[in-house]
Amino acid sequence: MTDTAPQAPPAPDAAEIDAALVADIIDAVAERDTRWLARTLQRMHPADAADALEQLPYDTFEKAVELLGGELPPDILIELRDAYREGAVDVLPDAAVATALDELDSDDATTILEDLEDARRERILEDLAPVERAQLERGLAYEEETAGRLMQTEFVALPEFWSVGHAIDHARALGDELPEVFYEVYVTDPGHRLIGVVALATLLRTPRDVLLSDIMEDPMSDITTDMDQEEVAYEFQKYSLASAPVKDSAGRLVGMITGDDMVDVIQSENTEDLLSLLNVRSADGSDTVWDTVKARAPWLGVNLFSAFIASGIISIFQGTIEKIVALAVLMPVVAALGGNAGSQGLAVTVRAIAERHLDGGAARRAVFREVASGLVNGLIFAVGVGVIALIWFRQVDLALVIAASMLATFIWAGFSGILVPLGLKRLGADPAVASSVFVLTLTDVMAFFSFLGLASLVLL
Amino acid sequence: MTDTAPQAPPAPDAAEIDAALVADIIDAVAERDTRWLARTLQRMHPADAADALEQLPYDTFEKAVELLGGELPPDILIELRDAYREGAVDVLPDAAVATALDELDSDDATTILEDLEDARRERILEDLAPVERAQLERGLAYEEETAGRLMQTEFVALPEFWSVGHAIDHARALGDELPEVFYEVYVTDPGHRLIGVVALATLLRTPRDVLLSDIMEDPMSDITTDMDQEEVAYEFQKYSLASAPVKDSAGRLVGMITGDDMVDVIQSENTEDLLSLLNVRSADGSDTVWDTVKARAPWLGVNLFSAFIASGIISIFQGTIEKIVALAVLMPVVAALGGNAGSQGLAVTVRAIAERHLDGGAARRAVFREVASGLVNGLIFAVGVGVIALIWFRQVDLALVIAASMLATFIWAGFSGILVPLGLKRLGADPAVASSVFVLTLTDVMAFFSFLGLASLVLL
Repeated sequence: MTDTAPQAPPAPDAAEIDAALVADIIDAVAERDTRWLARTLQRMHPADAADALEQLPYDTFEKAVELLGGELPPDILIELRDAYREGAVDVLPDAAVATALDELDSDDATTILEDLEDARRERILEDLAPVERAQLERGLAYEEETAGRLMQTEFVALPEFWSVGHAIDHARALGDELPEVFYEVYVTDPGHRLIGVVALATLLRTPRDVLLSDIMEDPMSDITTDMDQEEVAYEFQKYSLASAPVKDSAGRLVGMITGDDMVDVIQSENTEDLLSLLNVRSADGSDTVWDTVKARAPWLGVNLFSAFIASGIISIFQGTIEKIVALAVLMPVVAALGGNAGSQGLAVTVRAIAERHLDGGAARRAVFREVASGLVNGLIFAVGVGVIALIWFRQVDLALVIAASMLATFIWAGFSGILVPLGLKRLGADPAVASSVFVLTLTDVMAFFSFLGLASLVLL
Repeated sequence: MTDTAPQAPPAPDAAEIDAALVADIIDAVAERDTRWLARTLQRMHPADAADALEQLPYDTFEKAVELLGGELPPDILIELRDAYREGAVDVLPDAAVATALDELDSDDATTILEDLEDARRERILEDLAPVERAQLERGLAYEEETAGRLMQTEFVALPEFWSVGHAIDHARALGDELPEVFYEVYVTDPGHRLIGVVALATLLRTPRDVLLSDIMEDPMSDITTDMDQEEVAYEFQKYSLASAPVKDSAGRLVGMITGDDMVDVIQSENTEDLLSLLNVRSADGSDTVWDTVKARAPWLGVNLFSAFIASGIISIFQGTIEKIVALAVLMPVVAALGGNAGSQGLAVTVRAIAERHLDGGAARRAVFREVASGLVNGLIFAVGVGVIALIWFRQVDLALVIAASMLATFIWAGFSGILVPLGLKRLGADPAVASSVFVLTLTDVMAFFSFLGLASLVLL
């Protein structure tokens, strides 16, 4: 935001400029200068204010929120990262949380409600106006990670027989009662069923006397409250949407989702894929050591199991290794390169699945491509590793053995790198989760078995 | 899009319904039924039509584009994935490309121009109207992956002394000459400098006689033509933007970027990170075998080098292994678990850097967290592996050796998983690229050296 110098690198200097502000905030918290704190934060964009608060040491952050109480603007609260927002809600008095629920759009209010413990949620909901309360409870009733949870119930719906002029006069009459941000108005029939969408840009350029029914377009997306958020994000991407209407199972318009929420969904799905591929369950910059251990130990446990499978294979050939110790020196090379080839294919496949590039015939073509390129890279690296082994150990048959097992492992890696994630997807599992453990175990087994097995046959 | 059944899984059935359409298209191409083809595609949403075309076998796709020629709507062309779009542009006659350039928004036209070979681009540009040509050439002059390349030059800018009524009358007079999609109008001074932004929703709810200068807000973002696309995407996310104005170095308003383009940037940056972490340079579902080999062989080469470093370490201890062959059986366990722990930390760190969660003091806390959780997981798995080794080989000192080297490797993995990407970032390199090779080499070296070294000292 603050960086306008032409060639400056993107991230660092914003942080430097913030440093002075962060120091001032720390001082203000120490001096309990609530007034300065509240005024400073209110003058900033909520996203910038949230960033500054997240830069504080965690206990100072909590003290700052405690000091501010009801004077912490709800807009800032909702911009905080999950862990900080949850911490802030814990510290805030009930009255401040209730005010936030009242001021925020329904999707943001639902986020805050999710943070509360059951008893406290009940208590705070009871103090709200009945209409507000009913609306929030309806939001919470939708399953997590569905369109129903993500949508806001603030939107603009107008009847089809209205004219453009009528619509604009209506908006002016409502003024600030309209949702703060919207990019289109929805056209509904008397049964509240969605029949069309009019972009604000269209409303703007159309003469006053034209009817909404003449300029409305069919909604591009078809989002219902129970739709999975990943599917919703895909619709937004595919049709380049800034916002979209949400219908209930009877086709009635019940909410609106905006694009910025979808960007968050896309980011978190991407993070999930990447972490799953590298065997981490979840991650947050503010995780404690204990959270970190819990997120990683289970996968390390699975890896422990698969590593001992590889050990088991090696132990079959202990006699061979005892006679030819060079095998012990070289066997990690076959396993490392094979594993690397497998996880390359896996990464490409998981991305292609996420971007829906592997539907229908494309999957067959991709399997061919993976196996064929496994063959080509296998040939290249079989020769490379063979030559290095020959120079090092001056044994032609050893070089031939490692080259052959290298080739076999690469082709196998090509197969498993694509078939494991595709298979998991077909079984209804997330292709990113568990794939890499499977692929690495499969390639390890193949690498050690083919190398040591061939060596036992040829070299003894 | 076609899926409305309540509990249906998201992806598969859309593909099934498409299958009939794809078969019809293949028939139409075989029968050279251009009219049916053109009408069918025009009736679909461009994104759906592009999806259907991408489902065709590649040579049928090319034939379809050839048949359609100028009747392939530019909206569909721009919705095709990179490889398909480039293929289509190759096949289309110059006149059809020129029409597409004319009809598309400037950012999309620039994308098409980038696909053309220099000679052909010159030829086609020469046939365009001089104004159009100058505008497109200006777009191409901005560096790739900057805001200048991404922006469209179609936007609405109005003087601050205009009233809301005046603005709406102006929009109605322009009608279809206005950009098709926009969510805000920009307010400029006589020197074309951006001084404010008015959201269409605000324009709509404000009485006719209010001046734009009274309702305009400061632009939240601060995007200049030379800003990197990743930085632009960050601004969109941070401030929840649907669109944003772009200024030149003198502060003049020169373009507008819309959120859908930013979603594409976010997706491609995410893909890049994930692939880099798993050592692939680039990937596209439509890559040939040769492209695939080229994208992966270089990293396999680097991995070959690092694998032989590990081999070198092992070869130092050949004498020890010859005497205690159990070491050869167990050493891959230490390396596999250590490597896994390192890449877990790496994945979390790379994501945290991408989401800017590691600015300032957060980095120090993260290093502590990684090392501390390495210690805790190290203790857990040292005990686990030690116990298994004890049961298997019934040798207390061997169990103690593997436990100790396990612990050392985990702590080391904790350090390298976070310090390698942070170090690369500080050096100005992309922390996702090359990190995993470094981390795996470092953990392999530590694993083999500590395990075999300790074994030589203790067990011989």
